[in-house]
Amino acid sequence: MKNRIITISREFGSGGRTIGKMTAQMLSIPCYDSELIQEIARESGFTENYIKDADEISPAGFLGSAFASRTFGPTNEDYIWEIQRKVILDLAQKESCVIVGRCADYILKDTADCLTAFIHADLEFREKRIVSVYGERTETPGQRIRKKDKRRSAYYRFYTDTNWGYAENYHISLDSGKIGIERCAEILRLLY
Amino acid sequence: MKNRIITISREFGSGGRTIGKMTAQMLSIPCYDSELIQEIARESGFTENYIKDADEISPAGFLGSAFASRTFGPTNEDYIWEIQRKVILDLAQKESCVIVGRCADYILKDTADCLTAFIHADLEFREKRIVSVYGERTETPGQRIRKKDKRRSAYYRFYTDTNWGYAENYHISLDSGKIGIERCAEILRLLY
Repeated sequence: MKNRIITISREFGSGGRTIGKMTAQMLSIPCYDSELIQEIARESGFTENYIKDADEISPAGFLGSAFASRTFGPTNEDYIWEIQRKVILDLAQKESCVIVGRCADYILKDTADCLTAFIHADLEFREKRIVSVYGERTETPGQRIRKKDKRRSAYYRFYTDTNWGYAENYHISLDSGKIGIERCAEILRLLY
Repeated sequence: MKNRIITISREFGSGGRTIGKMTAQMLSIPCYDSELIQEIARESGFTENYIKDADEISPAGFLGSAFASRTFGPTNEDYIWEIQRKVILDLAQKESCVIVGRCADYILKDTADCLTAFIHADLEFREKRIVSVYGERTETPGQRIRKKDKRRSAYYRFYTDTNWGYAENYHISLDSGKIGIERCAEILRLLY
């Protein structure tokens, strides 16, 4: 049987990663999130921390990067993008799984049997959630969310040339604040 | 118990209306679509055909309307919008139901216990579907879809000041082409 993949894009603090892990557990298939970062780090030679941050940096978004590196060829981010593409395509070839983030929906678009999901929630829900999951920071929860989402959105836009969070780019979009994290996972399981 | 409402926004040809009717039937609650048009027509004094077209005409979208009528006060569309608002608010007060189109999601935003859904599908699925449901026309299916969606989107944008089809505006968005019309209805029933 052909492998089947669930990809999850998510707003920061919406619980998308947790939903991915729950869905994978229900289906007894692996969920790739930080494991993916390890693999990309291994293949690229960059550190895991560098890879972790790279999916929020679009080369077009930073003048420094655009002018300093891009005029002389591909940036580090472009190089990581290529490795990431290869790692995700290999994974989809190897086994059925859930993949969180990293534009997997776009990368697997025409090659794999995918269910693509986008998880979002209102600001109030996400603000509460990031404080309880990641703890307090100097920045307010609202500032942290705006910064993260802005970067994820720019990164997605730069590498996929489509809009992050636009319903028609995903098979299913769910408001985890309204629907509840467990029920979101349950729905994804049903649709698998 | 407080009434519970499911609102359905939909791309033209995605089967959103059919999904609304199926969901309502599964839940044994009424579904308002053309019935809503009749009610708005009755309250406003306009014909049903006029009302039917009005949810695709945003006053800002037509220079004729913007310059000829708007400078002298509210347009017919603004008047119909007010009646529509009232009819939808009254409905939500009266009973649990499914409401298709007419910006019901926005109108009921802060007043009712709503589940707001957006139904979309890729162009190929919708082109086939509109020909089988509504028959052939002089315009190609693609032209008909682009025209309808553009108008619905402009209307939604004008009266709600938010973007039609943007995932975060809905609790759930579903690709009916990928998921299937019956399964979409089944998911909405589950979430009710």
